[in-house]
Amino acid sequence: MKHFTSVDDIQDLNALLDIAQNHKQNPFANEDLGRRKTIGLLFFNPSLRTRLSTQKAASNLGMQAMVMNLNTEGWLLEFEDGVVMNGNKAEHIREAAQVVSQYCDILAVRSFPTLADKQKDVSEHVISAFKKFASVPIVSLEGSSEHPLQAVADALTIREFKTKNRPKVVLTWAPHPKALPHAVPNSFAKIMKLSDVDFIITNPDGYDLDPKITNGVTIERDQNKAFENADFIYAKNWSSFENYGQILSQDLSWTITSEKLKLTNSAKFMHCLPVRRNMIVSDEVLDSESSIVIPQANNRTFAAQAVLSEILKNQ
Amino acid sequence: MKHFTSVDDIQDLNALLDIAQNHKQNPFANEDLGRRKTIGLLFFNPSLRTRLSTQKAASNLGMQAMVMNLNTEGWLLEFEDGVVMNGNKAEHIREAAQVVSQYCDILAVRSFPTLADKQKDVSEHVISAFKKFASVPIVSLEGSSEHPLQAVADALTIREFKTKNRPKVVLTWAPHPKALPHAVPNSFAKIMKLSDVDFIITNPDGYDLDPKITNGVTIERDQNKAFENADFIYAKNWSSFENYGQILSQDLSWTITSEKLKLTNSAKFMHCLPVRRNMIVSDEVLDSESSIVIPQANNRTFAAQAVLSEILKNQ
Amino acid sequence: MKHFTSVDDIQDLNALLDIAQNHKQNPFANEDLGRRKTIGLLFFNPSLRTRLSTQKAASNLGMQAMVMNLNTEGWLLEFEDGVVMNGNKAEHIREAAQVVSQYCDILAVRSFPTLADKQKDVSEHVISAFKKFASVPIVSLEGSSEHPLQAVADALTIREFKTKNRPKVVLTWAPHPKALPHAVPNSFAKIMKLSDVDFIITNPDGYDLDPKITNGVTIERDQNKAFENADFIYAKNWSSFENYGQILSQDLSWTITSEKLKLTNSAKFMHCLPVRRNMIVSDEVLDSESSIVIPQANNRTFAAQAVLSEILKNQ
Repeated sequence: MKHFTSVDDIQDLNALLDIAQNHKQNPFANEDLGRRKTIGLLFFNPSLRTRLSTQKAASNLGMQAMVMNLNTEGWLLEFEDGVVMNGNKAEHIREAAQVVSQYCDILAVRSFPTLADKQKDVSEHVISAFKKFASVPIVSLEGSSEHPLQAVADALTIREFKTKNRPKVVLTWAPHPKALPHAVPNSFAKIMKLSDVDFIITNPDGYDLDPKITNGVTIERDQNKAFENADFIYAKNWSSFENYGQILSQDLSWTITSEKLKLTNSAKFMHCLPVRRNMIVSDEVLDSESSIVIPQANNRTFAAQAVLSEILKNQ
Repeated sequence: MKHFTSVDDIQDLNALLDIAQNHKQNPFANEDLGRRKTIGLLFFNPSLRTRLSTQKAASNLGMQAMVMNLNTEGWLLEFEDGVVMNGNKAEHIREAAQVVSQYCDILAVRSFPTLADKQKDVSEHVISAFKKFASVPIVSLEGSSEHPLQAVADALTIREFKTKNRPKVVLTWAPHPKALPHAVPNSFAKIMKLSDVDFIITNPDGYDLDPKITNGVTIERDQNKAFENADFIYAKNWSSFENYGQILSQDLSWTITSEKLKLTNSAKFMHCLPVRRNMIVSDEVLDSESSIVIPQANNRTFAAQAVLSEILKNQ
Repeated sequence: MKHFTSVDDIQDLNALLDIAQNHKQNPFANEDLGRRKTIGLLFFNPSLRTRLSTQKAASNLGMQAMVMNLNTEGWLLEFEDGVVMNGNKAEHIREAAQVVSQYCDILAVRSFPTLADKQKDVSEHVISAFKKFASVPIVSLEGSSEHPLQAVADALTIREFKTKNRPKVVLTWAPHPKALPHAVPNSFAKIMKLSDVDFIITNPDGYDLDPKITNGVTIERDQNKAFENADFIYAKNWSSFENYGQILSQDLSWTITSEKLKLTNSAKFMHCLPVRRNMIVSDEVLDSESSIVIPQANNRTFAAQAVLSEILKNQ
């Protein structure tokens, strides 16, 4: 594994999940692997789980972590080429990425989408620039169109909690007050396509994800029908992809409630967090035994540890 | 020791001060105790001494520290139950506390009071929520009504500098341009009640601290009278508790000056810092040999190290 | 070496560069030197290279680094003496410096100039206050009038890339949209005066640096003439020193282009970064093999490691 910025970078999902599972059982078994190695965690956006779990994963592997909030602690970066830099952006990504590569053995970057410029977001504008100019491996801590570390944690969680060989997994849109990115549902859809599951997506009209990603996946408009026999309900809000970045609906009838869960096969409830209570999901569901969002978040550490250890092994 | 969020969590003050003193003499004697352990330092408010001394204490014990400014680097947290989360708060404390507990062996939290909602502040609204939902020990880095790590450092300092078995210790209100919390004077009053000292409080009318805390302590309105024969003058501003959070006086006659110190038994001057010069205390006193605020601040490291080591020993 | 806040603190430049070179060849050879030692990195201003390279250097030496953004994470500091502190500044540098010295073995501070109060800036107002009140060595991470760690990296880079015993080095002013400090050109001029180079400065009228620093150095108004036979072109913008802090020119004819480089002896292009493309230097030059800004930035780690190791050896 060179870079890890997309689920597409996973060569063998089951092998990677085995590695994550091993780290979970013995978190410190590889604490010499990262000795004298440094990871730079570079944030353009807020982060709680990703920040702390990746730091913890690095620490478990014996790595030093240097954490920076680029926008507030460093310089505003220019990403366009050929520009006369006479505005408020003090440094070009070409220099920044090359320079920071010299201080770190791995760079991990979080950069949310604009939700205004579809082409930029789909192209992973920022993460791609780091990949292009940096001289060390790049790990996505959530990019504009993918959140692959989250997806690995999700797949690990499903493997741990499934009670049949081929569970039915439903990704469902749910309402939210703000326009949200597509990164989490995109990466989840991609990793489910690599998994031995019966996977469908349910969302309102106008909310279909990028058809290049959902290609081959059933998209069901009727949430109730989608939930039938489901073993896992993965809820998430996202803004419209067609009417890019817009909020077309805040329909609370899509909120995941106990009533809805009764339609399923005693499904487990999943969400990447942070989650809006009583918008995405009712208190009753989230506080019930059906919810596995807390162990799901715990798996973030071991997903990161698996990815970092694979990169370190190749260095 | 499970949690440490109040002076009430101290079972044996002298034993704890002995431990702190041992750490001070041999800071690295326990550097294996925290091996492979991680402390999360979570800040809702600014911090200089608490942040660096607790980080240093953790490092002396061999722990990893992960530091986060929650409001700016993470998500705004909702603390109310049953809310439809359709505002600007992205995550509920129920999830945040549970999740972060999985990445850390100890969580340390700083959260100042509102100074508007007395009930919330007295109940340690934020710290109590962390205690309720987290699955690991919680340490207060200053809550809304207590600052127990400061109090341990204060008690250690008095023990080091006292020249008689039972010194007279005076906690005095002093003027300040802003409305300040009650956490420091509350914890100081509590820990003095556990100590072998002659303790009195002096403050203007309207500035009495929570009577549940000062119960049994003499409150003297006449600062000059209170200072008579004092061995330690601990100055601090706080806003009114009765007229909750209000500034009733900025009377500079309460400022600690050389003239005032002459009323005492060559008292040592103490303050938790940061201190407003020529409001709380004159330059002359603060820059004199009477002032022990610098060694007092140094003891923050060993107070934290004592508390963290006691928690680690119980894990 | 006690403090390191100016090029004047270097006793033997060649010896220091030898040490830096040794660290570059064997970064971890001294990883026990900083064991149980802590460096506090205190930032009043943004930083990318300085922050990460100094953290990396500390880590290579086995030191703990505690990083703080003082203005946003701590308290606003008062630097004036005798003030009644009834405004927005909560803590005096006298206490802050003394206190933090107790938690750290070395303090490193970044503080940019006001560009309004010439006297304050030239006196290194903030860094000098830390030196005065702290009880541990102070390292400048760029002060108001010097950036000595940058200068050491610059000198190391010239030593590595020079192809003759006594190369010609030109420091040239170049245009920029904002008023910039004099710290980098000041320290570069000072270190070139200590080096075996033919050194000249070229800048427009009104842009002469502090004559106390450039004393003995040729200042050439004609950039083209200055570039003749040059082996190194070090470009940098600075605001006027005479008309203190003002922008007198944004003349793009001073931008470093391929045409300009043709006047030189195939000169290498240097800049401390961040650099404004197509203001300071054309894309064509910066992306060419003439540019050595990336290895120059890499040397920041080893410059810092040399300085920190010299300080640690004296402790």
